[in-house]
Amino acid sequence: MKKPENYTFSRVRIVMVNTTEAGNIGAAARAMKNMELESLYLVTPRDYPSAKATARASGADDVLAGAVVCESLEEALAGVHLVIGASARQRSIKWPQVDVIGACNAIGRAMVGGERDVAVVFGTENSGLTNEDLDKCQMLMTIPGNRDYFSLNVAAAVQVFAYQYFVLNDQQVLSESTNAAAGFNELEYFYEHLAQVLQHIEFFDEMRPQSLLMRRLRRFFVKARPEQDELAIFRGILHNIKPFSK
Amino acid sequence: MKKPENYTFSRVRIVMVNTTEAGNIGAAARAMKNMELESLYLVTPRDYPSAKATARASGADDVLAGAVVCESLEEALAGVHLVIGASARQRSIKWPQVDVIGACNAIGRAMVGGERDVAVVFGTENSGLTNEDLDKCQMLMTIPGNRDYFSLNVAAAVQVFAYQYFVLNDQQVLSESTNAAAGFNELEYFYEHLAQVLQHIEFFDEMRPQSLLMRRLRRFFVKARPEQDELAIFRGILHNIKPFSK
Repeated sequence: MKKPENYTFSRVRIVMVNTTEAGNIGAAARAMKNMELESLYLVTPRDYPSAKATARASGADDVLAGAVVCESLEEALAGVHLVIGASARQRSIKWPQVDVIGACNAIGRAMVGGERDVAVVFGTENSGLTNEDLDKCQMLMTIPGNRDYFSLNVAAAVQVFAYQYFVLNDQQVLSESTNAAAGFNELEYFYEHLAQVLQHIEFFDEMRPQSLLMRRLRRFFVKARPEQDELAIFRGILHNIKPFSK
Repeated sequence: MKKPENYTFSRVRIVMVNTTEAGNIGAAARAMKNMELESLYLVTPRDYPSAKATARASGADDVLAGAVVCESLEEALAGVHLVIGASARQRSIKWPQVDVIGACNAIGRAMVGGERDVAVVFGTENSGLTNEDLDKCQMLMTIPGNRDYFSLNVAAAVQVFAYQYFVLNDQQVLSESTNAAAGFNELEYFYEHLAQVLQHIEFFDEMRPQSLLMRRLRRFFVKARPEQDELAIFRGILHNIKPFSK
């Protein structure tokens, strides 16, 4: 299938740090290829290349063959504009923390206005990313899930991110239909505009904190999967609220 | 964490049919538990119980231990209200085909008004569900992805579904919400209020006739299936627009 000019999938780098199980590298490559991702970087993998990795990669041997093995995380991040670390929720507020949709949105914003590469970094199986690794990240991506047991396999985490990225960027859905789905940059601008207008009409307050309300509104719009035309109606409404307010 | 009354995760049954690799059963159990799913049914698994399954399940041994092994798909579907088959896209229009969000929405609809169980059925590794299996499904769920290479590992497919279901049903995000769908009267009242406010901010004009725009807005809200809490947010917004307008 011909790739459109604004095709972003090839510019999303998956970086796996100190992966111990070669099978997980293969499974991650397979997860990626199923969702059109292709750029895999491996930082000091313990057991690679490996027949196990190849077996688990199934038909994604090309992604595996193209994987870049690096001596350090810095090396894997060379030339990258945005670095997102996959991590369990951190108590520290050192980094902005986003969920997977939030990470995809951040990638969308980072890619606006240029051929920019981004990296999503996944740590080692047992302990995730070290603090030193995290210091190289601009934000942390936390995958939502069970609060009483959260221990995603690293390839499963890659799968979840890759799926979410695909769903939000699928060119065919975005471009083919006359009832075209709103693109994610478009949606992102809309949410920003919406938040501004809601601030302006003093909708947010202690009982209605902006972060919670915007998350709920986002979820509502995600459920409806707005078409461009529909988003235009809402933009029109927002536009008309302002002149009428104080 | 205390489960709210309308907790649905325990009523979503994951059914794996003729799974050949025990490791995939363990990985599926782990994927499920990470997303609060717990009900696993195995139809004639080739190699189970198995140390491999246990190893891959990691801390999800309880889900694995609770798995119900069945002799047939019928047995695994006993008592279920809605059966969704995970499948590659079918040419046949015999079944309604939905993506993962669509499947989650269908599950939400099926659960309205009762303690109903639903099943999502995943086929064998190499060939998926047979036509005979598919005939027992009311709809097919197709996971979006690469059109040139689509070969998701079965546990990865379970992971994607479980993640999407969690994101759309996460109780904490829905927080204290009754999660109840807005009723017909409530919606009608909301549309009236919405129309009034839109008149007030002079949104309607010749280019944006009220009847057409309201029809489109209704369609949008229907797609999102607003919950009572969500409607309350929109009511709050409408309420705040008025005092600020002229």
